[in-house]
Amino acid sequence: MVERNIRMLLAYDGTGFRGWAAQGDRRIRTVEGALTDVLEPVVGEGVRLSVAGRTDAGVHARGQMASFVTRSARSTIAIRDALNGSLGPEVVALAVDDAPAGFDARFSATARLYRYRVDVGAVPDPCTARFVWHHPCAPDLGAIRAAARHLVGEHDFTSFCRHPGAGKATVRHLQRASVVRTGDRLEFGFRANAFLHQMVRALTGTLVAVGEGKLEPEGIPAILEARDRSAARQIAPPHGLTLERVVYGRRKRPGL
Amino acid sequence: MVERNIRMLLAYDGTGFRGWAAQGDRRIRTVEGALTDVLEPVVGEGVRLSVAGRTDAGVHARGQMASFVTRSARSTIAIRDALNGSLGPEVVALAVDDAPAGFDARFSATARLYRYRVDVGAVPDPCTARFVWHHPCAPDLGAIRAAARHLVGEHDFTSFCRHPGAGKATVRHLQRASVVRTGDRLEFGFRANAFLHQMVRALTGTLVAVGEGKLEPEGIPAILEARDRSAARQIAPPHGLTLERVVYGRRKRPGL
Repeated sequence: MVERNIRMLLAYDGTGFRGWAAQGDRRIRTVEGALTDVLEPVVGEGVRLSVAGRTDAGVHARGQMASFVTRSARSTIAIRDALNGSLGPEVVALAVDDAPAGFDARFSATARLYRYRVDVGAVPDPCTARFVWHHPCAPDLGAIRAAARHLVGEHDFTSFCRHPGAGKATVRHLQRASVVRTGDRLEFGFRANAFLHQMVRALTGTLVAVGEGKLEPEGIPAILEARDRSAARQIAPPHGLTLERVVYGRRKRPGL
Repeated sequence: MVERNIRMLLAYDGTGFRGWAAQGDRRIRTVEGALTDVLEPVVGEGVRLSVAGRTDAGVHARGQMASFVTRSARSTIAIRDALNGSLGPEVVALAVDDAPAGFDARFSATARLYRYRVDVGAVPDPCTARFVWHHPCAPDLGAIRAAARHLVGEHDFTSFCRHPGAGKATVRHLQRASVVRTGDRLEFGFRANAFLHQMVRALTGTLVAVGEGKLEPEGIPAILEARDRSAARQIAPPHGLTLERVVYGRRKRPGL
């Protein structure tokens, strides 16, 4: 049988999962574990998923990409329907297709986009509570944007990483950090080539602290330079965070 | 102590509740039961709630009104915070205030507005699945609107009622029945002086059947005239339904 490279565009409500990554103990519910439990009987062999944007416990996805190599001849529609029949609407395969040879969901990705949603109103909204951090305050958006400008660019983000891992690279290129307010809702948008562990939540927590006046925008460079996790402020809770999209465009060449 | 009339504007995710109405068996989780369990210790006496728009199991609310009479002197802010601290974000008191004497959430209401949300796309959306009926189809909105025009007005809605109850009035004035499509999302809007049991879900199920071509718009008058529950088509599931608002304006006088 010819080897095929299957690509899956995924969305999920992460509330009931201990994150993406399958754990040794299969009783721990993970997105990767749930997907492979459905996929393996469908393709009739072991499945090893590659993914861009591994999510932590309680984090959601609207456009996560995962891929796997298989010798199965099952149609991509049959794979999609098997996944959605078993796991939907909690986990949904928005699309399943045959990817070009050499495509790998993780290593082919050139950028990841996350959104973090905050409700600053006095009372929470039951309809969006699973996906929005309810944090009543009167944020200063000008201060948040000034702080965000200090974060954009190529930096060592150790101060915004929970567990860098000894010897692991901690330099990332934050391409965009934006905030939009609509009524009581703040939407933070972050785009980077890749993110460190809990980096978006640490960035959001720190920007919200700036918005509340607990920290000056001009304090950001010193936090980056400290390269010390305790230098950053509060880490925002997982449930406000959603992986929105993974980019597979050509990498921009330096100088272009 | 002076008697006070407390009014509460409520929102909730009805997924985990067996509807509004408290049951004899307190182990059955209901919105009314959850609210009175919090309110009674706060006001130090028994609480009997009046409500407009009693919801069925799994139905949601964004702007339901409930009221109760009490001799407690507790502030309305304290009552709101006690409710939200115990029940939020699943059940939220958006506002609590002292109502004018004679106000009764149920009997003072002049109209109720419901929305029913349908996702007609191929795959469900995990972020909205708790509040939207996923029903893939290619609906004909013109046919739905033609059918809705036959429903608007004062009619005996027995054919759209699950359990009318012997001798109960079954005539209602449906003031509005609209549908809007945004992408794969249909939003049905219904406004009436009051609704019969499961009437909105029966109206929606029938209108969706019309949209799918299973029923002609011109078949609606015969269904109304039949005054027989089995005459209507499918009943839409509860989770797509939300009580949006209760109206307490002055009743329009006939002829005005």
